[in-house]
Amino acid sequence: MKTPSMTTLSILCGKGEHIMTQVKRLLINYKTLEEFKQFKEYGIQELSMLEDLESNMIENDSNSPFYGIYFADKLVARMSLYQVNGSTTTYFDHNHDYLELWKLEVLPGYQRKGYGEALVDFAKSFGRPIRTNPRVKSAGFWDKMGFEAVKYDMERDKGENPLIWEPAHIQKNTGESA
Amino acid sequence: MKTPSMTTLSILCGKGEHIMTQVKRLLINYKTLEEFKQFKEYGIQELSMLEDLESNMIENDSNSPFYGIYFADKLVARMSLYQVNGSTTTYFDHNHDYLELWKLEVLPGYQRKGYGEALVDFAKSFGRPIRTNPRVKSAGFWDKMGFEAVKYDMERDKGENPLIWEPAHIQKNTGESA
Repeated sequence: MKTPSMTTLSILCGKGEHIMTQVKRLLINYKTLEEFKQFKEYGIQELSMLEDLESNMIENDSNSPFYGIYFADKLVARMSLYQVNGSTTTYFDHNHDYLELWKLEVLPGYQRKGYGEALVDFAKSFGRPIRTNPRVKSAGFWDKMGFEAVKYDMERDKGENPLIWEPAHIQKNTGESA
Repeated sequence: MKTPSMTTLSILCGKGEHIMTQVKRLLINYKTLEEFKQFKEYGIQELSMLEDLESNMIENDSNSPFYGIYFADKLVARMSLYQVNGSTTTYFDHNHDYLELWKLEVLPGYQRKGYGEALVDFAKSFGRPIRTNPRVKSAGFWDKMGFEAVKYDMERDKGENPLIWEPAHIQKNTGESA
């Protein structure tokens, strides 16, 4: 997919002060993988990246599926994005390819400053539908971001609670791909 | 799938005392759905069952995909099981159908008494491979139950941390279906 490698966003930083911040595609290196350990949703995805780096199966500074925001030198927010082939799923009409968004997380101390919104806005900027399965109680956040619950389908959703978002041009012109 | 509708198990109940308990397939009715609200992982699956009942799309006391354990009259533990067509997935060799297990949960006050193990043992009794994606930090439990982590595959696993278990007769006789 076309990748806007960097986006500048205005983030609310205490008392109405705004700072400019950037969403960056994260590179796979030991520094990034060490920073990932600060996030609650550290799992086999991160361990697999570490193993691939250690065994030279991937090069240092390869692109990762993660995007993040740094505050000074510290990674304070991240998410993973992956483009799913729409023909294999039944979330969206007309088999649109869509983005699966997971591991959206902002570190404690940096929450409620707009970092999560900045990441989701970045994901939306690809112009594709998005599906996510939020792990924590965050209905208010996703509602504000325009995501809606799907109609439950056991075979497809099993124990998940998927939320979806569609760009306006797809909602209005069904049949027209982005 | 063949459904053992009930299994009697010996549960440790304080100070070495054992009581007999049963895993039951749960029926969809207003009492069950009200009891589900006590569980943390209440989501669109339960809401969908409630809507189907209210709109008469399913009958009162229909079988649900949930299995549970009652202590006296109170539902204290539950899980959901669903048979997945092995040809559409890549978790197990030879395209075995497998059981997806989710929403395994024991209510506070009833934990560490063997209810979780009883439910997983019940799931194993179908003789099929099992896949689960535990939501909470419970590696010790699943390890004790013989579940193992898979090798990460982003397209398949996305942000999940799946664990799998295979019956001995399948592990030993690959190519032989159950």
